[in-house]
Amino acid sequence: MPFVSIRITREGVTAEQKAQVIREVTETLERVLNKPPAWTHIVIEEVDTDNWGFGGHTIAAIREGKAPLPGA
Amino acid sequence: MPFVSIRITREGVTAEQKAQVIREVTETLERVLNKPPAWTHIVIEEVDTDNWGFGGHTIAAIREGKAPLPGA
Amino acid sequence: MPFVSIRITREGVTAEQKAQVIREVTETLERVLNKPPAWTHIVIEEVDTDNWGFGGHTIAAIREGKAPLPGA
Amino acid sequence: MPFVSIRITREGVTAEQKAQVIREVTETLERVLNKPPAWTHIVIEEVDTDNWGFGGHTIAAIREGKAPLPGA
Amino acid sequence: MPFVSIRITREGVTAEQKAQVIREVTETLERVLNKPPAWTHIVIEEVDTDNWGFGGHTIAAIREGKAPLPGA
Amino acid sequence: MPFVSIRITREGVTAEQKAQVIREVTETLERVLNKPPAWTHIVIEEVDTDNWGFGGHTIAAIREGKAPLPGA
Repeated sequence: MPFVSIRITREGVTAEQKAQVIREVTETLERVLNKPPAWTHIVIEEVDTDNWGFGGHTIAAIREGKAPLPGA
Repeated sequence: MPFVSIRITREGVTAEQKAQVIREVTETLERVLNKPPAWTHIVIEEVDTDNWGFGGHTIAAIREGKAPLPGA
Repeated sequence: MPFVSIRITREGVTAEQKAQVIREVTETLERVLNKPPAWTHIVIEEVDTDNWGFGGHTIAAIREGKAPLPGA
Repeated sequence: MPFVSIRITREGVTAEQKAQVIREVTETLERVLNKPPAWTHIVIEEVDTDNWGFGGHTIAAIREGKAPLPGA
Repeated sequence: MPFVSIRITREGVTAEQKAQVIREVTETLERVLNKPPAWTHIVIEEVDTDNWGFGGHTIAAIREGKAPLPGA
Repeated sequence: MPFVSIRITREGVTAEQKAQVIREVTETLERVLNKPPAWTHIVIEEVDTDNWGFGGHTIAAIREGKAPLPGA
């Protein structure tokens, strides 16, 4: 442990960005919670935009301007 | 919050059906639990039928008649 | 299947409210996606307010007015 | 990796039973998928019976005979 | 219930291996925890190797020898 | 989105440490992936040490010296 799941929409995040997030979150957990990196697993789970609902609408619809952006 | 994960088998659910589920579950959480839609995130996570086990068999095998449907 | 996880903050949701959410979400999945209730499992996972981060702050801090409510 | 989450209702599972499940699932993943135990994390997540819905009712209601057991 | 999520890297696990894992884990939960197979759902969730971080690096980088294997 | 789940063992992590982890992970996701904090939800899910298996043993047994620490 720890085990971290990071769910984001599938919208072109690069391998380099994923590696950066993994590096930084592992470092945070080591420094703040004293968790050894060798025990730390992090998965980035990408979800299609018509599978992610926000404010009652899909992100796909929000991106296409067919639904309001919550809080906008 | 809330954050809702809905896992289903990947068996042809349409974008319209996903949008309907997202709309209705968001509305339920707002009416019953007073959770603002602008804070409500819902993800629909589709799983291949040979990755989903039910009653000790994969859904793929059950669909192909190679394994019994539990409770049938 | 389906399996639904609903994460909310632990802030006094009653057993009746939980039962209502379970009833409605099961009904939505049956009507919209044709998923049999006898295969539908829903868990409501309550998270303490200092374990839930929103906008970079804990919900506990936001509730106590020590941190801004995102989008307010 | 692997990371395994086992959700069950909170109904008196003992520490010995949990240790047995952890031992067996780790052994299965090593033998069948060649996953090293030193990389295998398993969490058993216990959910209160009025937080678990099955067939549109809570397990609490089913256990108390106030709701039908799906498929019975 | 139970509901089991098994996250592994997407590295060529076969349909037969998945079926075997599903069979064995269902059997373990029935024998050790007395959970009926007809209520037991297991999903195997495969994650791309550049989406899985271990020891601060992606499994993709580790497999390519660009990053150290934790504990090696 | 994003939605982040951080599972750790329940071993005395303080409210300040949790707030720090939430602050840092939110900042990483904003800087590296351009995700607005107002859309970012992070939950820290604490698991009892006899509910967490590592290397085929519970963390409770490992802490008590009754089982080996994987990789030690």
